[in-house]
Amino acid sequence: MLRKPYLAFLGDAPSSVTAKTALGVRQWCPDDIVGQWSLPGCGIDLDLPEMTPGQARADGAASLLIGVAPRGGKLPESWRAHLVTAVEAGLDIVSGLHDRLSDIPELAEAAARTGRALHDVRHNDRSFAIASGRKRAGKRLLTVGTDCALGKKYTALAIAQAMQKRAMLADFRATGQTGIIIAGEGIAMDTVGADFLSGAAEALTPDAADDHWDIIEGQGSLFHPAYAPVTLGLVHGSQPDAIILCHDPARAAVTGFPDYPLPSLAEAAKAYVCAARLTNPAARIVAVSLNTLELSDEAARQAASDAETELGVPCFDPLRFGIDAAIDAIAAL
Amino acid sequence: MLRKPYLAFLGDAPSSVTAKTALGVRQWCPDDIVGQWSLPGCGIDLDLPEMTPGQARADGAASLLIGVAPRGGKLPESWRAHLVTAVEAGLDIVSGLHDRLSDIPELAEAAARTGRALHDVRHNDRSFAIASGRKRAGKRLLTVGTDCALGKKYTALAIAQAMQKRAMLADFRATGQTGIIIAGEGIAMDTVGADFLSGAAEALTPDAADDHWDIIEGQGSLFHPAYAPVTLGLVHGSQPDAIILCHDPARAAVTGFPDYPLPSLAEAAKAYVCAARLTNPAARIVAVSLNTLELSDEAARQAASDAETELGVPCFDPLRFGIDAAIDAIAAL
Repeated sequence: MLRKPYLAFLGDAPSSVTAKTALGVRQWCPDDIVGQWSLPGCGIDLDLPEMTPGQARADGAASLLIGVAPRGGKLPESWRAHLVTAVEAGLDIVSGLHDRLSDIPELAEAAARTGRALHDVRHNDRSFAIASGRKRAGKRLLTVGTDCALGKKYTALAIAQAMQKRAMLADFRATGQTGIIIAGEGIAMDTVGADFLSGAAEALTPDAADDHWDIIEGQGSLFHPAYAPVTLGLVHGSQPDAIILCHDPARAAVTGFPDYPLPSLAEAAKAYVCAARLTNPAARIVAVSLNTLELSDEAARQAASDAETELGVPCFDPLRFGIDAAIDAIAAL
Repeated sequence: MLRKPYLAFLGDAPSSVTAKTALGVRQWCPDDIVGQWSLPGCGIDLDLPEMTPGQARADGAASLLIGVAPRGGKLPESWRAHLVTAVEAGLDIVSGLHDRLSDIPELAEAAARTGRALHDVRHNDRSFAIASGRKRAGKRLLTVGTDCALGKKYTALAIAQAMQKRAMLADFRATGQTGIIIAGEGIAMDTVGADFLSGAAEALTPDAADDHWDIIEGQGSLFHPAYAPVTLGLVHGSQPDAIILCHDPARAAVTGFPDYPLPSLAEAAKAYVCAARLTNPAARIVAVSLNTLELSDEAARQAASDAETELGVPCFDPLRFGIDAAIDAIAAL
C-alpha cells in the first residue's frame, strides 16, 4: 500500500525521456499529486507547481514518486543524495525502476533512521497461496488484448472511472507498475512465481459485495509467444464475469514478433472466453475497446462498427468515443 | 548439471516414508546409482549394496542423493553431520527438498572448503531470456495431461527409452525435480518467473539435429485452476511437433479441486493442440497415455480402445501395454 499524495521527482531528465508514470497519475488521480521537483538541467515540465521535498511535505505530500524512467531503468548516481533529502524531509519513496531503492546503502540507512518506506513497485516480496479456484462474491471485469501495449490499463481505468461517475461500486485493480502507482496498491503480476500466478490474481480481487465490480488491468496476451502464461494466470485467478477485448486495428503482428500475426477479434474472443470459463462458466465478452490512434475519424468509426458486427457487443475507443454503451452492457449483467 | 553416479542416502527414514526419487533413478538409470546408505533405525531398503560415503566414493560415486522425502520437505537436524561427512568424503550433495542445503552453515562451509557442490533441484538461480518464438531445428515431443500426477514424467521416460531401444536419437528433458535427478540436468519449471516460463522451455530444448527428438516432461494441466500458466509456458516454449495426452480414466475431477471435473479426451486434445499451434502450426496429438492402475485388465483394454476411437491415435499404458504403436506414430512424423 503506497502513501499518497505524491511529489513527482523529475531529476535532471532530458526532454526526450518519458514521464509516463507521473502523467498517468496526473490524468487518473489528479488530487494525488501535489507538485513536481526538478533539478537544474531538467527538460521536462508536467505543468505542476514546483516544490522541494520540504515544501511538498508541508503541503501534505506523503511520498516522492520517481516520475521519469531513465534509459535502461537505472537510477543515476547523482540522484541518490536528492532521494536521501526527500526521505529526511519525511517522504516515502516510490519507484518503478529496475534498480532497487533498498540497494542504495545511504538511502536504505536514511529510510531506516527516519522510519520512511522505500517502495519498488517493479519488485515483489509478497508470497501468495496456490489458487483455490473457489468462486468469490462480487463481480469482476478483466481487460484482455490481442497483444501487449494497446490499451488494457487505459481501458480498465476509463471503465472504472465511468462506472464511478454513474455511482456504480467499482474499483480499479492494478497488475503492473504504472497501474499500481496510480491505484496506490496492486500486484505486479510479472514478478510472481509461476505456480502462484492464479493465486495472486485471486488475492488481488477478494470477496466483495454482490454489486461491487473489480475492474482488473489485464497483462500480455494469450497470443504472445513469451507472455501468455501471465495472461492465463490472470484470466483463471480473476474469474471474470465480464471481459473487454482490447485491440489495435492498425497492428498486424505481435509487437517485436513479426512472425506472429494478431488473431481476429472472433478468434481472440473465443480463446479468452474458453480460458475464463474454466473458473467462471458465466464469463463473456461484454465489449471491445479499440485503440484507433492510427486511424482517421471515419476509419475509426468504421472499425468500431465492424467489431460490433463481428462480436455482437458494443465497441468503443476510451480516448475517442462511445464508452456509454459498454457501461450499459456491464450494468445489465 | 548434476554429477553421477549417486549414492542414495536413506537416513533413518521410517518405512512409511517414500523413496520415490531414489526408486526413479534405480528404475530409469540403474547404472547411475552405486548403493544406499542407511542409518540405524532406517525402515526402508532399496535392495542396493549398503555403503558409507567413503566406500561409495571409492566405488566411483560422485554425489550423495537424498533419496527420501521427510514430511513437509524438511531436512532433519540429525542428518546434517552425515551430509558433512559425505562432502568430506568427496561427494556433491543432490537434494529435492524444500529446505536449501546451502542454508545449513556447517554444510555450506564444508562444501566451500572441499570444493564440492550442493544442488537444490527444487530451487533455481538461473535466469532465462524472454522467449523468442523462433522455430528451432530438431523434433520435440511433449507429454501433457488432463490433470497433475497421472503419468506425464513416466510416459516421457518410457517413450525416450523405447525410442533409444530402436536406435532413434532421443533425449528425455526434465522439467521437475525427480526428472532432473534422473536426467542429471533440466529446469524445474515451477521455480521460473512468470515472464520467463516460455523462454526457459526454449532454453531446455535448443536447436538439435533434424532427426533428433527431445522428449519433454510435461507439468500441470491447462485445466488446472492453479497450475495452468506453467503448463502453457511449457507448451509454447517447447514448440512440440508431437503431443502425448496423459489421462487417468478413473479420475473424475482435478486432484484437490472436486468442483473441477476433468475434461474429455477430445476437449483436452483440442485445447492443447490449439495452444501449441501458436508456436508450431504442425503440432498434433500422436498418442494417448492412460494410467490404468485402478482398472482391471479388461477395463484397461476397453478404456484404451475407447480412447483410440475418440482421438484416432494409438493409446497405451506405459506400465502395462502397447507402447510400440505410439513409437511407430512418432517415427512416421
